Amino acid sequence: MQKVSLSLIQEKQAKIESPSFFIGNNAPGIISFGSGAPDLDVPDEARAAFSCLSGSSSAMLYGPVQGNLELREELSKRSHDCKGIEPENIIITNGASEALDLALRALPQNSKVLLMKPYYYSYPHLVEMAGHKIELCEMKDDSIDLEKFREKAKGCAAALVNSPCNPTGIVERPETLKEISKICEEENCLLLFDEVYSELVYEGRHFSPKGRHVLGLNSFSKTFSLCGARIGYACSENNALIKKMVEEKAYTSMNTSTISQAIALAAIKTNRKYVEGHRKIFRGRRDLVYNGLIGLGLELRKPDGAFYALPKVGNPQKLMEELFFEKKVIVYNGAWFGAEGRIRMSYALDEEKIGEGLERIGEVLGK
Amino acid sequence: MQKVSLSLIQEKQAKIESPSFFIGNNAPGIISFGSGAPDLDVPDEARAAFSCLSGSSSAMLYGPVQGNLELREELSKRSHDCKGIEPENIIITNGASEALDLALRALPQNSKVLLMKPYYYSYPHLVEMAGHKIELCEMKDDSIDLEKFREKAKGCAAALVNSPCNPTGIVERPETLKEISKICEEENCLLLFDEVYSELVYEGRHFSPKGRHVLGLNSFSKTFSLCGARIGYACSENNALIKKMVEEKAYTSMNTSTISQAIALAAIKTNRKYVEGHRKIFRGRRDLVYNGLIGLGLELRKPDGAFYALPKVGNPQKLMEELFFEKKVIVYNGAWFGAEGRIRMSYALDEEKIGEGLERIGEVLGK
Repeated sequence: MQKVSLSLIQEKQAKIESPSFFIGNNAPGIISFGSGAPDLDVPDEARAAFSCLSGSSSAMLYGPVQGNLELREELSKRSHDCKGIEPENIIITNGASEALDLALRALPQNSKVLLMKPYYYSYPHLVEMAGHKIELCEMKDDSIDLEKFREKAKGCAAALVNSPCNPTGIVERPETLKEISKICEEENCLLLFDEVYSELVYEGRHFSPKGRHVLGLNSFSKTFSLCGARIGYACSENNALIKKMVEEKAYTSMNTSTISQAIALAAIKTNRKYVEGHRKIFRGRRDLVYNGLIGLGLELRKPDGAFYALPKVGNPQKLMEELFFEKKVIVYNGAWFGAEGRIRMSYALDEEKIGEGLERIGEVLGK
Repeated sequence: MQKVSLSLIQEKQAKIESPSFFIGNNAPGIISFGSGAPDLDVPDEARAAFSCLSGSSSAMLYGPVQGNLELREELSKRSHDCKGIEPENIIITNGASEALDLALRALPQNSKVLLMKPYYYSYPHLVEMAGHKIELCEMKDDSIDLEKFREKAKGCAAALVNSPCNPTGIVERPETLKEISKICEEENCLLLFDEVYSELVYEGRHFSPKGRHVLGLNSFSKTFSLCGARIGYACSENNALIKKMVEEKAYTSMNTSTISQAIALAAIKTNRKYVEGHRKIFRGRRDLVYNGLIGLGLELRKPDGAFYALPKVGNPQKLMEELFFEKKVIVYNGAWFGAEGRIRMSYALDEEKIGEGLERIGEVLGK
């Protein structure tokens, strides 16, 4: 096994402090359990969308800041999370990340925002960048702790909940989410519900809370293997909130790429079998990773959804660095996600690579 | 002349409060002097980039947050504003708007930011959204007032200068910009230099200030008719600033659309004759608009660059609404740009439409 070349180390600096270190690092021979980017085919229909420039208008004009109307209409009709939500209550964004950023910036200055812990790594940064204060609600082993949530939600302007959860793989039960939604409504706390993995559920079922106090956040990235195109969206029965976000976006980035939106429009019209086929593939990978890690003697919860495993390990930072520099295997330190003492492994890669990667991890762990 | 239909008025609300009212409003028969989106052809090479999905990798993975390396290399080699600036000191963004937003968010909380007045309409909003305070420097008739600039720059964390200027059409002289750059360096004030119209100069010449205290902001939108694709960038000799912006972007939006970047990469390799041909066309339109407005008895400065005219009118809000609802002509209230008592007219539309639009304006003005 060749080590990672010195030039790569020098170029990227040997100290790994955040996922940015790895993003876009596709040097040959590397097996990445890092970034959560599906490696599966884009829908055939999406490819056809590339012809959008050959239409009658040869220049690429600005599109509506809120997003292509046809795309919002399709979301309103087809997408489970936008069901019953009109196109004017949907905004298309540069990934769900931008949607979340705009929503946080729409809150009153210096608000308290409740995060579950573990969390997606951007969450605390986005809350702080928007000038707010972080309130943390430690999760129980397999769910959000409703008692703690009720207590912590008081006085918060928003609570951010992610199900299926990155990094834990937990799919919250509908009853839990209904209770969370009720608490938020009572406490006048905006429920920011990040459901970008809603189509990747292997156990239980996905549930989308609804109401004027809820903003749903979703994306084409995971469902349609379109991460690079950066198409996300937010929807809410609260039109004033959507309008405020559109206004902000007119200043911060204008329309989301019209070409990416054309591809997303083609993607959403794709046959449901595409989504179901991918779910089946990810379920198989989930089993492979889970069984493999158990076989290596690691302790972890079997993920219900998304495509991440979160095993406990002795020294995550050291293991991560060893795996990368000695074995060309990328895993993320769980601490970046508020999951101390763990590593996060994305299984958005093919079974052969998963097998090879587990083997190399076994070598480092001395198994 | 048919009036704009009631449904459009109801849908969009009759009161026009900001440019958002018009953006993406392409109803038939409308002649728009509003949004600054070139209507000219995309380079042929750019179209070819649509094949990027047909390559060996069929999924669209995340790209580097900082932007496609090849695109940054081409910018470093070819673009006048990035001359001498290495690819690691360039960041690709969702238009120059996002670059500016990231730069403002990188400043210490609660800073003072100096804006010239008139200004591009997003500037004050972006400064406030980032939690900073606005300091205004009123422009003289045909240039930035250096005495005022020197006085106002004291204690500011950043100053935002736009040349060629939207909405005034002023191209600042190199000596003025050198002096501004010197003042900023002395005052430890970051010079945010927005040069998105740098390829559209008809009088004088464009100059890009350089130094560790300068962040250049530019875009493919105006130079290559690629507004909808949303490809902008920022470059600076100050690598720490670029790094900070990349870090922020990893939270707020991740990579800029990889498809849009592929198109931008094809565009930047296009023959310089493309850019020069467009400049010639815009110069002709500038003359047509300027002479036409003078012919209508309006007072305005002849624009040196960009594609905006800014004539004085009696009641801009009333004229704007009359022109839109009675004559289907879009102009913007100059007040949105800090140019009270004026309207802003983009001349990014063909000569026939310019002629027809001027005629309709003449009808409303009673000429």
